[in-house]
Amino acid sequence: MSEKLEPLLKKMFQMGIDTFIVSDLHVIRWLTGFSGSSAKVLLNRQGSILFTDFRYAEQVRQEVEVMEAVILQNGFTDSLIEGGYLQGKRIAIQEEQVTVHEARLLGEKLKDVDIVPVYGFFYEFREVKNEQEIAWMKQASAISEQVLEEILPLISPKVTEAEIAAEISYRHKRHGAEKDSFDPVVASGARSALPHARPGKEKFRPGTLVVIDMGCVYNGYASDQTRTVAFGRVPDEARKIYNITRDAQQLGIDSARPGMPGKELDALVRGYIGKQGYGEFFGHGLGHGVGVEVHENPRVGKTSEDHLLLHSVFTIEPGIYLPGKFGVRIEDTVVMRESGVDPFQCFPKELIEL
Amino acid sequence: MSEKLEPLLKKMFQMGIDTFIVSDLHVIRWLTGFSGSSAKVLLNRQGSILFTDFRYAEQVRQEVEVMEAVILQNGFTDSLIEGGYLQGKRIAIQEEQVTVHEARLLGEKLKDVDIVPVYGFFYEFREVKNEQEIAWMKQASAISEQVLEEILPLISPKVTEAEIAAEISYRHKRHGAEKDSFDPVVASGARSALPHARPGKEKFRPGTLVVIDMGCVYNGYASDQTRTVAFGRVPDEARKIYNITRDAQQLGIDSARPGMPGKELDALVRGYIGKQGYGEFFGHGLGHGVGVEVHENPRVGKTSEDHLLLHSVFTIEPGIYLPGKFGVRIEDTVVMRESGVDPFQCFPKELIEL
Repeated sequence: MSEKLEPLLKKMFQMGIDTFIVSDLHVIRWLTGFSGSSAKVLLNRQGSILFTDFRYAEQVRQEVEVMEAVILQNGFTDSLIEGGYLQGKRIAIQEEQVTVHEARLLGEKLKDVDIVPVYGFFYEFREVKNEQEIAWMKQASAISEQVLEEILPLISPKVTEAEIAAEISYRHKRHGAEKDSFDPVVASGARSALPHARPGKEKFRPGTLVVIDMGCVYNGYASDQTRTVAFGRVPDEARKIYNITRDAQQLGIDSARPGMPGKELDALVRGYIGKQGYGEFFGHGLGHGVGVEVHENPRVGKTSEDHLLLHSVFTIEPGIYLPGKFGVRIEDTVVMRESGVDPFQCFPKELIEL
Repeated sequence: MSEKLEPLLKKMFQMGIDTFIVSDLHVIRWLTGFSGSSAKVLLNRQGSILFTDFRYAEQVRQEVEVMEAVILQNGFTDSLIEGGYLQGKRIAIQEEQVTVHEARLLGEKLKDVDIVPVYGFFYEFREVKNEQEIAWMKQASAISEQVLEEILPLISPKVTEAEIAAEISYRHKRHGAEKDSFDPVVASGARSALPHARPGKEKFRPGTLVVIDMGCVYNGYASDQTRTVAFGRVPDEARKIYNITRDAQQLGIDSARPGMPGKELDALVRGYIGKQGYGEFFGHGLGHGVGVEVHENPRVGKTSEDHLLLHSVFTIEPGIYLPGKFGVRIEDTVVMRESGVDPFQCFPKELIEL
């Protein structure tokens, strides 16, 4: 995994940064493999170091090969000073992670250095995945697809959305995932028209669409998928918007090419839905990057300036939401290859009627 | 719930703060009851306002009575400016919540005001609970005790710690909790000697102690409890440290009085364990406050400056951990009343042998 370190150190050098204090646990996991809940990393050309506390002494030995690990005896900042670990004058912190309070304490204790807040330093590096990362994301996707297959037969007029959501979380873990990558969305009836509905306490009613948006974490890497199914016979308009959404999603998969701007892919799919007369009912972006976080770069939306790089991983998830009636969303997570994208999901996209 | 607002506005006035921008969702839930995942609150004597986005338009109507709610059309800061919502010159932010990045953007957009970072403004107010909050925490505790009773019989040489942990999370939700208040700890054998062990993938072995630390969230309020059980016949030394820990925990419950310094209660219990010869094996603080967060004030440890106020809620959780062998922790969450503390848990503390 040390392949990740070199370009970071190079960019630091170009920016005139001597030492980077990394505090984001997602970045630390991405960079070192460490999965504990308490750590800091010092990046430095003279040798990078991971700091954690005594609870993780054994775990850090098992997980971290790419850099030296130090078990903290005192607070992090005090240990930096006492141990003489800080190298150079310009010390960068993650501007989007460090609180005003933490930055103030750091400034009070580290008197002879310049603390430089840097925004989004790691985003570009996390965007492009290696084959090991892709394998873990495929495994997370496979677990979540198996869970989806298991829970669909449980949907009935006797259970609630919240109960199905609890089943999803439980089965993710039972099948080897660390946890959900986000709280599952299970939204039926008129609630299917709310893109971020929380699972409700009402039981399922026949004749409705059910949107199920779910994902899990395997070896630190997230999956994300959405399928919409019919519970019983649904109205013709529901079938119609289902088919438009499915075709739009397939158009997205077929059209993506390496280097394409995210907003171009968004516009293609959005244009198709617009031509079918439902443009105003697709109110969110087409997709987002996935990795150690379930939302990362590239963004794939109207205003995105990101490009869809080779070996980047992102979602393609158009939706049509008719307020007060019903909604459809279909989502795969894909990896960009030379000739186009390769979806991680293989769950059918024909309308399933339960 | 408006009883909470008045003392906040008074303290703001005393500090010369005109408007407080609250960004911590725990504080917002505590103050307004709003449970959505996106919100800011403006506190101001001329009228406080909760801001959220269109996804929560319906939910905010149902949940929030204590102040006006506004649905954001644009970003929060832009809406503040366009809507003329900012009152006065001195605008406080939560120093321990706001990132350096957010503070910078705010400063760039709000040019004619002083942005004042304030640390821990809400801690003292959250510490003392009202009877409604106590009732919700008791309900959370009751759910988690029922789950504990259900999962103990599932422990067997055929299942793993991780599987039991998954059962706990699942059953919390099935019994009406929103979610776990923290990832359950299920630690057996030598791992029981690690206070924060993550559930492992090995199956339970007879003749070991099992530490189960778990809690859930009900109506926004957390519970926290630990019991240690014997799986099969355990060594005499395990029984011995079990009994010492149990007696130490009972001593803590019997000794706590309103107004007592947290470190005094810690010292009492620590002293007892020390006299039994195991002082060096009790390596953490005696307890911590619980509320909308599972760790809040008062702290109950060696260096705590907090006092155990009337109607504050906190844990009493001594432990003895013999590295490489086994560990015991017993924990209740209690509320401070006039005559002493009232535990939320009633699960037996005699050693259960499965």
